[in-house]
Amino acid sequence: MHATNHQYRLAARPVGMPKAEDWHFTETPVGEPGDGEVLVKVLYVSLDPAMRGWMNDAKSYIKPVGIGEVMRAGAVGRVTASRHPQFAVGDHVVGSLGVQEYAIADGKGLTRVDPRLAPLPVYLSTLGMPGMTAYFGLLDIGKPQAGNTVVVSGAAGAVGTVVGQIAKIKDCRVVGIAGGKDKCAYLRDELGFDAAIDYKGEDVKKALAQHCPNGIDVYFDNVGGDILDAALTRLARGARIVICGAISQYNNTTPVKGPANYLSLLVNRASMTGMVVFDYADRYAVAAREMAGWMAAGKLKSREDIVSGLDRFPDALLMLFRGENTGKLVLQVAIE
Amino acid sequence: MHATNHQYRLAARPVGMPKAEDWHFTETPVGEPGDGEVLVKVLYVSLDPAMRGWMNDAKSYIKPVGIGEVMRAGAVGRVTASRHPQFAVGDHVVGSLGVQEYAIADGKGLTRVDPRLAPLPVYLSTLGMPGMTAYFGLLDIGKPQAGNTVVVSGAAGAVGTVVGQIAKIKDCRVVGIAGGKDKCAYLRDELGFDAAIDYKGEDVKKALAQHCPNGIDVYFDNVGGDILDAALTRLARGARIVICGAISQYNNTTPVKGPANYLSLLVNRASMTGMVVFDYADRYAVAAREMAGWMAAGKLKSREDIVSGLDRFPDALLMLFRGENTGKLVLQVAIE
Repeated sequence: MHATNHQYRLAARPVGMPKAEDWHFTETPVGEPGDGEVLVKVLYVSLDPAMRGWMNDAKSYIKPVGIGEVMRAGAVGRVTASRHPQFAVGDHVVGSLGVQEYAIADGKGLTRVDPRLAPLPVYLSTLGMPGMTAYFGLLDIGKPQAGNTVVVSGAAGAVGTVVGQIAKIKDCRVVGIAGGKDKCAYLRDELGFDAAIDYKGEDVKKALAQHCPNGIDVYFDNVGGDILDAALTRLARGARIVICGAISQYNNTTPVKGPANYLSLLVNRASMTGMVVFDYADRYAVAAREMAGWMAAGKLKSREDIVSGLDRFPDALLMLFRGENTGKLVLQVAIE
Repeated sequence: MHATNHQYRLAARPVGMPKAEDWHFTETPVGEPGDGEVLVKVLYVSLDPAMRGWMNDAKSYIKPVGIGEVMRAGAVGRVTASRHPQFAVGDHVVGSLGVQEYAIADGKGLTRVDPRLAPLPVYLSTLGMPGMTAYFGLLDIGKPQAGNTVVVSGAAGAVGTVVGQIAKIKDCRVVGIAGGKDKCAYLRDELGFDAAIDYKGEDVKKALAQHCPNGIDVYFDNVGGDILDAALTRLARGARIVICGAISQYNNTTPVKGPANYLSLLVNRASMTGMVVFDYADRYAVAAREMAGWMAAGKLKSREDIVSGLDRFPDALLMLFRGENTGKLVLQVAIE
């Protein structure tokens, strides 16, 4: 092995939006896999809102990325050398490979994927963590019933697009909240949402009142902040709020804005429940099979927003927080 | 009937703490019950934090008290005239009789109680709405398991004292949060709480860390505000928060303080669920029977804080918001 590996390492804990100086772009020789390890050439890196949280030195559901460490990221790649009995050269795999060109991995958390069944980026999208998050968050926590009104924020993102489409499959009325007319048109015209609210151009509270005349039965929250507060004012009795994320708050330099209208939970006998997708790992395969079926039947569309070039990582990550992606944001690191 | 009836009517919607001018003290002749009605001489009036909410002109789980109407309140009294087949003169009854000396009531929501089984104020306390709230909120929503750590705020109040004692009966570790050393001593020494935190004299967050080394499994919240936020920082995985009230926020003239640490729900896969006791009406009798059994066995103590004189109503109500009561605050209107 004489190739070089490039990677992005965390240089400093960001204050507010991550800046260029918060990263170190480094070059190292490509390593050789030890016994029980594989060498993977990284092809696509997943860019996720959750990555911002991993950059903070705070107790969370996963330990922070250390200063000087390669930035943690899910990725898809191809095995180029293997000393692991379950993986062969040429296999495509998905796992936590990091923001880099080559990764050495023991087999843990590495899953073989088949590029003939779906394009590789889909394994970071609808058939990956965002899809699993949508599937288990909506079905296990939100528990939508046919005829329910389901509202999802961050609706044009990787998780939101899947939440809304599964809710339609379950015969719910679906209202998406997204930023901009194009995203809203996409939700309505391409994905079949019953309504879409442009939070940049509309009064969300008023629009929710208009589009949810019987209140909200399930609110799937990806954004927090004022939109969560607006949704709280429109809950139906017994409503379920799924707390999946709070992208509006991740780059705060002031304290998180708590939901001032939380007493609506009391008035409406409603619940607000947090979820972390990793808890459902033993059911990923079942979910993937069901979602692949929906995709094959044309009921579930997967959309990826692909940016090419490892060196675009620092800025591409910010696209998430600026609301510039539609569908799953993926960084293409290499062409196969 | 030639007696006179006195009552407190809502004169204005209060801004912040209710003031003397927000009430009209009025005198009317005592009415005569019509067909299917009873006349009740009111003996004890229940003073509850929820009454503050009923004074606002806001959508809630119950309609607001109208300007000029007798203030709504639960009360215990004695039937002095009856044209209702199920109630006889001399019967003791509990129901929503209002802040007044005499009430005319149709039978709906009126329940006969037996003063030989428990002192009358207990039917407004442990065997009344606060007791039912504690019972169903803790057991149905909080779902405590033996060995769990249960934390309750407003712990020395009508609901909190019962929550903590039931949690002890269910073999939980119980930590109460209350204002002042005397209340804390009462919780520990009289009611058998494992620990009590004086929020007026201690750093609640630090004290919770000390007294809940394995985190909080069930948090029963009566107060909201900073104490809810402190509890959120100490949740155990899968914790259940019961939102029963938010007394710290009821007299706000600024917006309610939302729980800034609500993303702890996500990190800890926890839930926050609102409850309204009226939903459990068809199970009140079962709960009362079980709680009466615990009282008879000496496992559940009921404490009432009794203020005498209808004219003390406006100020007695404020005792709740100033944290001056220990146990259930009751206004004695008449001596039998």
